[in-house]
Amino acid sequence: MLAVQQPTVAPDPLSVPSNAPEHCPVSLNSQLEIFGPTNRAELQGTESELAGKSDACNGCANQEICASSTPKGPDPALPLIRARMATVKHKILVLSGKGGVGKSTFTAQLGWAFAADEQLQTGVMDVDICGPSIPTIFGVAAEQVHSSSSGWSPIYVQDNLAVMSVGFMLSSSRDAVMWRGPKKNGLIAQFLKDVDWGDLDYLVVDTPPGTSDEHLSVVQYLKESGIDGAVLVTTPQEVALQDVRREIDFCRKVGIRVLGLVENMSGFVCPGCKTESQIFRPTTGGAASLAKETGVQLLGKVPLDPRIGKSADYGISFLDEYPDSPASQAYLDIISSKCFI
Amino acid sequence: MLAVQQPTVAPDPLSVPSNAPEHCPVSLNSQLEIFGPTNRAELQGTESELAGKSDACNGCANQEICASSTPKGPDPALPLIRARMATVKHKILVLSGKGGVGKSTFTAQLGWAFAADEQLQTGVMDVDICGPSIPTIFGVAAEQVHSSSSGWSPIYVQDNLAVMSVGFMLSSSRDAVMWRGPKKNGLIAQFLKDVDWGDLDYLVVDTPPGTSDEHLSVVQYLKESGIDGAVLVTTPQEVALQDVRREIDFCRKVGIRVLGLVENMSGFVCPGCKTESQIFRPTTGGAASLAKETGVQLLGKVPLDPRIGKSADYGISFLDEYPDSPASQAYLDIISSKCFI
Repeated sequence: MLAVQQPTVAPDPLSVPSNAPEHCPVSLNSQLEIFGPTNRAELQGTESELAGKSDACNGCANQEICASSTPKGPDPALPLIRARMATVKHKILVLSGKGGVGKSTFTAQLGWAFAADEQLQTGVMDVDICGPSIPTIFGVAAEQVHSSSSGWSPIYVQDNLAVMSVGFMLSSSRDAVMWRGPKKNGLIAQFLKDVDWGDLDYLVVDTPPGTSDEHLSVVQYLKESGIDGAVLVTTPQEVALQDVRREIDFCRKVGIRVLGLVENMSGFVCPGCKTESQIFRPTTGGAASLAKETGVQLLGKVPLDPRIGKSADYGISFLDEYPDSPASQAYLDIISSKCFI
Repeated sequence: MLAVQQPTVAPDPLSVPSNAPEHCPVSLNSQLEIFGPTNRAELQGTESELAGKSDACNGCANQEICASSTPKGPDPALPLIRARMATVKHKILVLSGKGGVGKSTFTAQLGWAFAADEQLQTGVMDVDICGPSIPTIFGVAAEQVHSSSSGWSPIYVQDNLAVMSVGFMLSSSRDAVMWRGPKKNGLIAQFLKDVDWGDLDYLVVDTPPGTSDEHLSVVQYLKESGIDGAVLVTTPQEVALQDVRREIDFCRKVGIRVLGLVENMSGFVCPGCKTESQIFRPTTGGAASLAKETGVQLLGKVPLDPRIGKSADYGISFLDEYPDSPASQAYLDIISSKCFI
């Protein structure tokens, strides 16, 4: 029933200019590339010399733009972002691939740990536009953003810890943010150019799962200003690790340094009998094996402690509340590793 | 430091036509709407009479399209999708809001449970383009799609269970799929119009976390053919429930019936002493409380069994392998509820 297809071609993210129209043939073209050269003569993509001129383009609303050889020029937001980011010393991305592995929770611990040093100014930017959890995790879900002559003010969790999220902009936390990519990208650009972050030692960017609009846009917008690197968060399961492999590939392709791997939910110690259970079993060796296989540093393993999730729901700092938990120690060991200094 | 802003306006997903160009002022406009009427005279959006004609549009590559009053017409994929879907009796979406709550795992159990009846033909479509886990969960990750005169053939897990995922199209499982929304939407359209599903009793669609391109596109493409409804999957934590509230809002706004809620990872029974621990604590009452609050039916609660994750990693059916597990019973109770019949 199954036949081996022709050698596949990995999709090239750079084949779509950021301002490609939504219905441009490049979308279908690049997808068809997966299946080999079928119809390539018809579907040329926006960067081809035949863009806007082939038969397949007839009737497309964007035919004229594609046919025009006028260069589209750089994104006008870039110089504004560069200017705003000039006062931010370090920029760290938190990525995961898979959702629900504790990425936002790790982001929050990192933010709180940096901010424990009163000399440091830290910002946390939540670019998970459709599922913003940073306001809840930091206990500031009821706050709202206001704007002034110097830009949009972030929400201050404490004097030296500012956060920004679309969650602060919704009239109700029940409202779905049903935005397609271009709108999400526009808001991310605004977060970077219009938010009055002030002088920051660290800007930690929490991302949604995947390797799509939000990730490409953050990298595109921040790359000129310099990104220190990305922390990849995972659980021990193979289905999470395979998404981390894709995330490592993403970092390599866009030229972002991988600072290291964090394995969350590594084991659960029963409060009744102290038996340790591997709830999310490392069927293929977990993050340690992935680190060995890819050469990426394993920063640490954080055991599963139900109080971590509880702290996130209540918006309190797990590190401050449960300093004696082995999970707190694991977080602190990870955060004090030299890649963050 | 904080000031209460003017009353906010929830973003309206319908304000962006599906073929709005990527850099069209509507993106910024809709974002600015959140902050009130500032600059609205300048930024009109593609549906305004002033679209393409205001000062803010000067120099925009898409000015001519926006200024034109020519109707853009319906998506040409729609009649093809309608024709292909004519042989599919029931279409069910699996949504979650938050990632990592067991959405793909539930999708797989649903697929396997339907397919246990030899008289039923079931299809599973994975529209998680950047993090496809369905091939691994069904144990068919090494397969590749081929095309014939009748379309792309899905991968058959067994004679009456077919699956389709972008995972089958990648040359390596390590390849990141770095696609922005428009490319993802194009592939989803192709899955619906070009895949030779044949006669199906059920098509179960597994979605990525969120309420963005993939979700809007699936609904847009399938709505005319009829969608039976959506199952919402969650864990007991508040940070997961708040994303489910947004997902309920999404369903309401796009006119999709919510079939019910499934609470995964509801409790963990220690194999050593049988003590039950709430790993993901229901700090605000869990899915039961959410069901009460929203009027959505709670279909059931599935306890946390580490063998579920292990089965997913090994690509085997948990229901077949561990029929005596309380989690299997919970899944079967949910799946046999009348909303799926």
